[in-house]
Amino acid sequence: MRIVVLTGGIGGARFLLGVRAYAREVGAEVTAVVNVGDDLLLHGLKVCPDLDSVMYTLGGGADPERGWGRVGETWTVKSELAAYGAEPAWFGLGDKDIATHLVRTTMLNAGYPLSQVTEALATRWQPGVRLLPATDDRLETHVVVDLDGGQRAIHFQEWWVRHRADVPTHRFVFVGAEAAKPAPGVVEAIGAADVVLVAPSNPVVSIAPILAVPGLRDAVADGPAPVVGVSPIIGGAPVRGMADRCLSVLGVECSAAGVGGLYGARSAGGLLDGWLVAPEDEGTVVPEVTVRAAPLRMIDEAATVAMVRAALELM
Amino acid sequence: MRIVVLTGGIGGARFLLGVRAYAREVGAEVTAVVNVGDDLLLHGLKVCPDLDSVMYTLGGGADPERGWGRVGETWTVKSELAAYGAEPAWFGLGDKDIATHLVRTTMLNAGYPLSQVTEALATRWQPGVRLLPATDDRLETHVVVDLDGGQRAIHFQEWWVRHRADVPTHRFVFVGAEAAKPAPGVVEAIGAADVVLVAPSNPVVSIAPILAVPGLRDAVADGPAPVVGVSPIIGGAPVRGMADRCLSVLGVECSAAGVGGLYGARSAGGLLDGWLVAPEDEGTVVPEVTVRAAPLRMIDEAATVAMVRAALELM
Repeated sequence: MRIVVLTGGIGGARFLLGVRAYAREVGAEVTAVVNVGDDLLLHGLKVCPDLDSVMYTLGGGADPERGWGRVGETWTVKSELAAYGAEPAWFGLGDKDIATHLVRTTMLNAGYPLSQVTEALATRWQPGVRLLPATDDRLETHVVVDLDGGQRAIHFQEWWVRHRADVPTHRFVFVGAEAAKPAPGVVEAIGAADVVLVAPSNPVVSIAPILAVPGLRDAVADGPAPVVGVSPIIGGAPVRGMADRCLSVLGVECSAAGVGGLYGARSAGGLLDGWLVAPEDEGTVVPEVTVRAAPLRMIDEAATVAMVRAALELM
Repeated sequence: MRIVVLTGGIGGARFLLGVRAYAREVGAEVTAVVNVGDDLLLHGLKVCPDLDSVMYTLGGGADPERGWGRVGETWTVKSELAAYGAEPAWFGLGDKDIATHLVRTTMLNAGYPLSQVTEALATRWQPGVRLLPATDDRLETHVVVDLDGGQRAIHFQEWWVRHRADVPTHRFVFVGAEAAKPAPGVVEAIGAADVVLVAPSNPVVSIAPILAVPGLRDAVADGPAPVVGVSPIIGGAPVRGMADRCLSVLGVECSAAGVGGLYGARSAGGLLDGWLVAPEDEGTVVPEVTVRAAPLRMIDEAATVAMVRAALELM
């Protein structure tokens, strides 16, 4: 059995822990196609927050309390950068994390594509899941906002981390998406999959940038494998993060039905065959999509495996 | 009064502490022209060991025990890089130090020349001395050695740090020197100086690469200011480092007379008007150079000020 998961960072990483555990039980292969829209250059370093969240979490190196970054992280470089007055100061890189970015940036500057760099980094972390960036090309999520008296486009991370999504926001733009190509192996993995799972990640800024890569959305929507999504919204609120703010920018209701409707039915030009919602959202209707309810709190790996099993029963 | 000091890293930095203290007493201005031949790219970061040794030492941030790098340094990034198997592993960058290299590399990649980057970094450290790299251009000291069964040219740092200068060595090459230009301000500072001091740095790999920049040696040798050197060799042994190994490659005796002769008299096409040697080396003769003896152990700032005063009495 071959499982492909479309995923963002932290929530998706936790979901993948369950997918991996399930896959080990049944002998399945897992490929994670990971969002790169959050990626950015900081102090000359290429930082890939979602790829790293997945890699660290699956590799046992993530901080389980904070949810992002490395366990036992230290912040010496950050405070030194601040002493130099180096900008941006609003995004803190941990010392352990910086080593990852140094290795990645060095390899990228030497000409290796992000997919090969990710594979190289993963030889250390042994995530047990094949990690593929959605694309090797530049694709950055920017956000059009009102700021300093005018309308400006800022990087997603500036919107999210610096402004806490708390500025008047007009829309999201996936810069570079038109010219981006799926990373090597992505379309092939989707074409060979027995199921495509959409992780309970932010639909607007984690999953949408993946699907914005030309050819990638079609590979999923027109592919042979059934597509089952897991709702990131439980009882009208995001499990984590600020999906509510992102959805409101799009004018989409923050609910399991709202996100299910945003993805839409494959049979109607959308993405989904199945949609797994929380028991709180039992009765959710998404036209032409099979909806089922199951507990969606990823409190531990066993609970997450049960979620995965429930999602696969929607195939 | 205007003092220009030609200098390498650690020994030169300590010497500059004395020059600065003297300059404060008498109201003099000090410009340090610093070797860049040791500079290298590590993990994509531009590392300037001599500029940093001087900057950290004069800025009160150097480790007085180790002699190089930052006081209270930590090594998280280094051990993480090792966990990735990142090469080279033989040169360790401290976490605090890495912040300096990140700021420098980001500015260089943005198009600023090294001299402006150095000035920007110095706004934090307030060294009290104007720091100028000998050149903004690439000038790297390479070493031609016998290694792995053949003759190869390796970077100075690989020879020095990795091999501890303990490989059969043929010669030093200052890669890029022919095309290098003195950094802005260097020739002007030398031309306006009342005295040029040659710090007790390694003559072969710290001072020679500075003088290898076309126009720079001539500015000193043909300039209006007297040139006084301070011997890095006391009683036949280097005060610190491996100047003996470097001198033996050139076939020069490791002695105050040997180094004085290597620099040579200005009147005979060389560099020096005066040469300060240690009491152990009293009686040293360098043809056409005024030689004087004074204590040269830089055990504290007062001792170093006395050295500087003795050197200036040779003007």
